[in-house]
Amino acid sequence: MAVIYQRVALIGLGLIASSMAHAMRQYGLAAEIVGHARSAETRAVALEIGLCDRVYETAAEAVQGADLVVLAVPVGAMGAIAAEIGPHLKAGATVTDVGSVKQAVIAAVAPHLPQGVEFIAGHPIAGTEHSGPRSGFATLFKNRWWLLTPAEGASPAAIARLRALCEAMGANVDVMDAAHHDLVLAVTSHTPHLIAYTMVGVADDLRRVTDSEVIKYSAAGFRDFTRIAASDPTMWRDVFLNNKEATLDILGRFTEELFALQRAIRLGDGDHLHAYFTRTRAIRRGIIEAGQDTAAPDFGRAAQPAGE
Amino acid sequence: MAVIYQRVALIGLGLIASSMAHAMRQYGLAAEIVGHARSAETRAVALEIGLCDRVYETAAEAVQGADLVVLAVPVGAMGAIAAEIGPHLKAGATVTDVGSVKQAVIAAVAPHLPQGVEFIAGHPIAGTEHSGPRSGFATLFKNRWWLLTPAEGASPAAIARLRALCEAMGANVDVMDAAHHDLVLAVTSHTPHLIAYTMVGVADDLRRVTDSEVIKYSAAGFRDFTRIAASDPTMWRDVFLNNKEATLDILGRFTEELFALQRAIRLGDGDHLHAYFTRTRAIRRGIIEAGQDTAAPDFGRAAQPAGE
Repeated sequence: MAVIYQRVALIGLGLIASSMAHAMRQYGLAAEIVGHARSAETRAVALEIGLCDRVYETAAEAVQGADLVVLAVPVGAMGAIAAEIGPHLKAGATVTDVGSVKQAVIAAVAPHLPQGVEFIAGHPIAGTEHSGPRSGFATLFKNRWWLLTPAEGASPAAIARLRALCEAMGANVDVMDAAHHDLVLAVTSHTPHLIAYTMVGVADDLRRVTDSEVIKYSAAGFRDFTRIAASDPTMWRDVFLNNKEATLDILGRFTEELFALQRAIRLGDGDHLHAYFTRTRAIRRGIIEAGQDTAAPDFGRAAQPAGE
Repeated sequence: MAVIYQRVALIGLGLIASSMAHAMRQYGLAAEIVGHARSAETRAVALEIGLCDRVYETAAEAVQGADLVVLAVPVGAMGAIAAEIGPHLKAGATVTDVGSVKQAVIAAVAPHLPQGVEFIAGHPIAGTEHSGPRSGFATLFKNRWWLLTPAEGASPAAIARLRALCEAMGANVDVMDAAHHDLVLAVTSHTPHLIAYTMVGVADDLRRVTDSEVIKYSAAGFRDFTRIAASDPTMWRDVFLNNKEATLDILGRFTEELFALQRAIRLGDGDHLHAYFTRTRAIRRGIIEAGQDTAAPDFGRAAQPAGE
């Protein structure tokens, strides 16, 4: 494929940025990839494993001359980074981000960007429970959705160019309103994460059941919760603090439904339970048909890497 | 390996029983495997794919002459089956079950079994979200836990023989009290399932977010919930109706914790959230170390069967 951006600056070098670096290299999408991370160790790893051609101690240096700047730091850190890089951005550059929340990021970042720079907020819906510069891989975005939430008045050419980059990395792109994004993600991601964290916390607290029992007998449902609940704590703290309204809205509905099922259990209303469980099964089929998962049975051993 | 039981009768021919049939054949653990399923179609499939040497239209016929009888029907159906087979069991036979709840099954089954028959309740903690006679495979139990909850006074020799069968199919065996089993499973399985069902139901109900959006953007957490929530509705209805007390106990703790996190979000208490999420991460590490899952990133494509 052809080069889409001459110089890409990755600010933050975790799972998403390092996967972007691998994918851009593999498909030849950027002539030059530079990066910044707060930690000296992360910067050293990024050079060592070839994520970046050059790394910089400050974000301000890293963005100089970049055609595309990708903010890949926790949502709560976006505003400060934007304030730092604003004066150093090249005219005509595009700035995007990969945060899981869009309204709060736009509110924090947009005011710091100068005229002549395009800000197109984005969110790749892809990830694993791992983090850090060594966790990335080139196929992370393959057949995953990358949502763009540009402000009204953003340049169609700049949007098309960023879309081309995402698609060249294997993603499907949808453009939507930032508020709608935050509601959709509260349902499909933020609330499920909070619930998984909670359930894992409850298990840990229970005196009558030992941690070793919880761990040994986890195959029956709990294992999937711990996978979700192992995600990066800082990233998730920032998600909940910055998508407060939508998350609390969905949580309210969730507890309402949960109380109805709890009541059905207490009253022994098997018909209510059976009808509810039958309905939810259909959604799973839709996800398999949409290619976002496979129907192969998951018994926790399929993805075992060589040598284990 | 050597034959452990001459004739094994499988009552119910779903995921667990069919996996047992495959495993017993593969390792030569039973000289003869016979079966019963209520549905004529299931019986035909069981013969066609070689799960059973013979199938019977009634459970009463199937258990005649069997050394081991495995009750592999939904928990709510165990009592009626026990009443039916009681008079037809061979003296010295062992009866076990594979239900996810133990106290209720013991209460329903034990009164119907004659003197001279050993009842050793059991629960293999293994499964996938698939069901039916074609869903089984010989390695389902490999490195999974199989819990036995024999009544006081059960024959040590009969327990040892059943344990040998489970271990020969690849499982690790623990023996515990039925009440403790029901509490442990309420934490590691029953409550997580109810929560997953609830979250999937909430997503389906939401008018402002379309089903197709939920499905498309499921990769970020929700996907694992739908996998859990796709499990067999009848089995799960029976689990909740029959492990009512422990499930309601754990659900109460869950909502209490969830409200505390919800309050932290509302108040913007990032420290509380961060500390909570950090603690839950450690449990995940324990599960990987215990061999109940792999650390390989799960991005929903690893287990893709050949040809997809």
